[in-house]
Amino acid sequence: MSTVGQVIRCKAAVAWEAGKPLSMEEVEVAPPQKNEVRIKILFTSLCHTDVYFWEAKGQNPLFPRILGHEAGGIVESVGEGVTDLQPGDHVLPVFTGECKECRHCLSEESNMCDLLRINTDRGEMLHDGKSRFSINGKPIYHFLGTSTFSQYTVVHVGQVAKINPDAPLDKVCVLSCGMSTGFGATVNVAKPKKGQSVAIFGLGAVGLAAAEGARVSGASRIIGVDLNPNRFEEAKKFGVTEFVNPKDHNKPVQEVIAEMTGGGVDRSVECTGSIQAMISAFECVHDGWGVCVLVGVPNKDDAFKTHPINLLNERTLKGTFFGNYKPRSDIPAVVERYMNKELELDKFITHSVPFSEINKAFEYMLAGEGLRCMIRMDA
Amino acid sequence: MSTVGQVIRCKAAVAWEAGKPLSMEEVEVAPPQKNEVRIKILFTSLCHTDVYFWEAKGQNPLFPRILGHEAGGIVESVGEGVTDLQPGDHVLPVFTGECKECRHCLSEESNMCDLLRINTDRGEMLHDGKSRFSINGKPIYHFLGTSTFSQYTVVHVGQVAKINPDAPLDKVCVLSCGMSTGFGATVNVAKPKKGQSVAIFGLGAVGLAAAEGARVSGASRIIGVDLNPNRFEEAKKFGVTEFVNPKDHNKPVQEVIAEMTGGGVDRSVECTGSIQAMISAFECVHDGWGVCVLVGVPNKDDAFKTHPINLLNERTLKGTFFGNYKPRSDIPAVVERYMNKELELDKFITHSVPFSEINKAFEYMLAGEGLRCMIRMDA
Ligand SMILES: NC(=O)c1ccc[n+]([C@@H]2O[C@H](COP(=O)([O-])OP(=O)(O)OC[C@H]3O[C@@H](n4cnc5c(N)ncnc54)[C@H](O)[C@@H]3O)[C@@H](O)[C@H]2O)c1
Ligand SMILES: NC(=O)c1ccc[n+]([C@@H]2O[C@H](COP(=O)([O-])OP(=O)(O)OC[C@H]3O[C@@H](n4cnc5c(N)ncnc54)[C@H](O)[C@@H]3O)[C@@H](O)[C@H]2O)c1
Ligand SMILES: [Zn+2]
Ligand SMILES: [Zn+2]
Ligand SMILES: [Zn+2]
Ligand SMILES: [Zn+2]
Repeated sequence: MSTVGQVIRCKAAVAWEAGKPLSMEEVEVAPPQKNEVRIKILFTSLCHTDVYFWEAKGQNPLFPRILGHEAGGIVESVGEGVTDLQPGDHVLPVFTGECKECRHCLSEESNMCDLLRINTDRGEMLHDGKSRFSINGKPIYHFLGTSTFSQYTVVHVGQVAKINPDAPLDKVCVLSCGMSTGFGATVNVAKPKKGQSVAIFGLGAVGLAAAEGARVSGASRIIGVDLNPNRFEEAKKFGVTEFVNPKDHNKPVQEVIAEMTGGGVDRSVECTGSIQAMISAFECVHDGWGVCVLVGVPNKDDAFKTHPINLLNERTLKGTFFGNYKPRSDIPAVVERYMNKELELDKFITHSVPFSEINKAFEYMLAGEGLRCMIRMDA
Repeated sequence: MSTVGQVIRCKAAVAWEAGKPLSMEEVEVAPPQKNEVRIKILFTSLCHTDVYFWEAKGQNPLFPRILGHEAGGIVESVGEGVTDLQPGDHVLPVFTGECKECRHCLSEESNMCDLLRINTDRGEMLHDGKSRFSINGKPIYHFLGTSTFSQYTVVHVGQVAKINPDAPLDKVCVLSCGMSTGFGATVNVAKPKKGQSVAIFGLGAVGLAAAEGARVSGASRIIGVDLNPNRFEEAKKFGVTEFVNPKDHNKPVQEVIAEMTGGGVDRSVECTGSIQAMISAFECVHDGWGVCVLVGVPNKDDAFKTHPINLLNERTLKGTFFGNYKPRSDIPAVVERYMNKELELDKFITHSVPFSEINKAFEYMLAGEGLRCMIRMDA
């Protein structure tokens, strides 16, 4: 029996309150409206950004909400006006979109679509300002326009990348946020030259994807920085050659790195969300040519602070969302890089749980254990 | 009678104390030592950096000192080991040098020579840590390795650009600092594309040179920002098309500019030295692709402060010294651009005084009057 045009009832993990375990609920998922797509999510993984908005410590609280934004699935039905996707297409929903019409989408440099760029405070669909999720008719908020902690979700067509149907969704799923973000931050933004040194701050999944970008770029040294020494063993598999734990030193880590490298690294990529790490990542790049790229999502009251002489000494500071990839135009090709074995993804997936045990994924991340936990939606 | 190898007695304007008028003195100028050149200065102009170190408000005081770093002259004699310059060569001394051997000099990106980069606190020559200037045997400090407020000065060979002898020294003199700095900040670092908008903060000589860079690059709009409305009339000659005085608005100037431009300018170049202007210049560039370049010399206790989200929104922040030009390798070609009439310099020179009236040049700058005051050393 076709579900097209019908409300679908399915399981979703709802965050009712900040910091409280998600609760499995039966939700109603309304049909996709104009320029929307309803997707059957097969796999979703947990990214730190989900945890930040679940904890809602440095972020605006918005509950009840269905979190989740790193996922892979299959189009179930499409709304009015959707022409380039059809039921059965394999897709990755993405937290930031591409309308293909605004100045950002038309610019070669930007992926910050005016219409569909990340909006962490919005809990409804753009089309009508309403939620497609409800429980007994009471709306549940969306998250990042993706809300993939549900067996079905509704996403704006501009936030959906259509990919090679041969690609295993339980692997390329991680390209929908973390891996593309980290990998792109290095290859599209920091752009290390062959033989240069790269420091990676934060050896979570995003940081290790940045390290993977450095490896693919032919970096000579990849220096990993993390407060959690458990990260170091894992990171060796990602070509990280040296480790620095800021806690082991009684001087700022930027000075430690400057000493290790004769003045600083050529490139740094910050993947922590810690403002202190952002400042250190900037100040540890070499003067004259060093480039620092910020990736981590800061708290809303954070301030980046440095002496302007650090800039005048010809350092470059940049930030990126989603590794500067345009989700619809660029992500299919990143999936192909995985299919061609240029880019490794399997090593990022260290845990796997059935949907019913999604809270375990939160526990692993809070404990700093492993990288990505794959959540199987059918179980 | 040759002066080679002899102490030369000549006139110099000595700063004995912070903020007190320079005083004309007869000084002794020792012969050039290893890798040094003694230059007869014919013209020198006043740059704001001289004024900062003369006032010594936000900078370390070092007196008595011979200031001056924007100049043109003729080689009088060369010290041991100097092979690529000889007496009679027309040269521009430059406040930052190029040894041609260190990693910076070998890098395509950097001009921050390890040996000879700007050092505002050093008052002696590198070779022996001594001054070449004295009055009755008592040493007078150097400034930036150039000290051009003297009819003769001694400069490290790495800080000397040999130029076309047909170039009029009373014009190309300004390429020795301010004009190259501003012009290069735009064309080498901000790199606006044809048709893009550019905001220039500070419409002094450096800022107008940055505007000249925007004009040469084909910018569609050049927005000038200055606290001093007297600057606006002059700036029209430099292709500045719109003016914003932060004092005329009761919201931050970055918001005013964002409104004028539908979200921000494509490029901005800060040429003020004011930390507030640096922050505004950064925050007024468009997200997605905007690039801000800092040029102004900050006070030593200043802190650049912004919310990291401004960076994550894909803005780029950079700084530059001397417009990223390598003084010996690149400046001769900039002189040629003037000779070919691509680049205009004459309009920067608004005043002229004989050396004996050098304090007038300080008065003009303190009053924000005109751009560059040319000081004729033989008068
Ligand atoms: N800009 C984007 O588009 C984008 C996309 C996805 C994720 N993110 C952000 O990237 C960051 C990393 O995500 P993740 O999923 O890899 O998280 P994660 O928690 O798995 O990894 C973060 C790592 O940073 C380390 N860390 C924290 N503070 C540190 C400090 N001061 N110095 C050194 N290391 C420190 C932690 O110990 C941890 O190992 C998060 O801030 C996330 O929100 C940004
Ligand atoms: N990085 C380098 O290599 C380099 C080289 C030369 C000069 N500089 C620096 O460049 C700056 C400009 O030099 P200049 O000779 O043109 O000086 P200038 O005094 O002639 O011009 C500076 C202008 O900035 C304006 N201004 C000051 N504060 C402002 C603010 N908050 N907002 C807007 N406008 C403001 C002033 O009114 C003035 O018109 C100085 O800081 C100088 O030290 C740097
Ligand atoms: Zn994410
Ligand atoms: Zn768009
Ligand atoms: Zn100067
Ligand atoms: Zn050098």
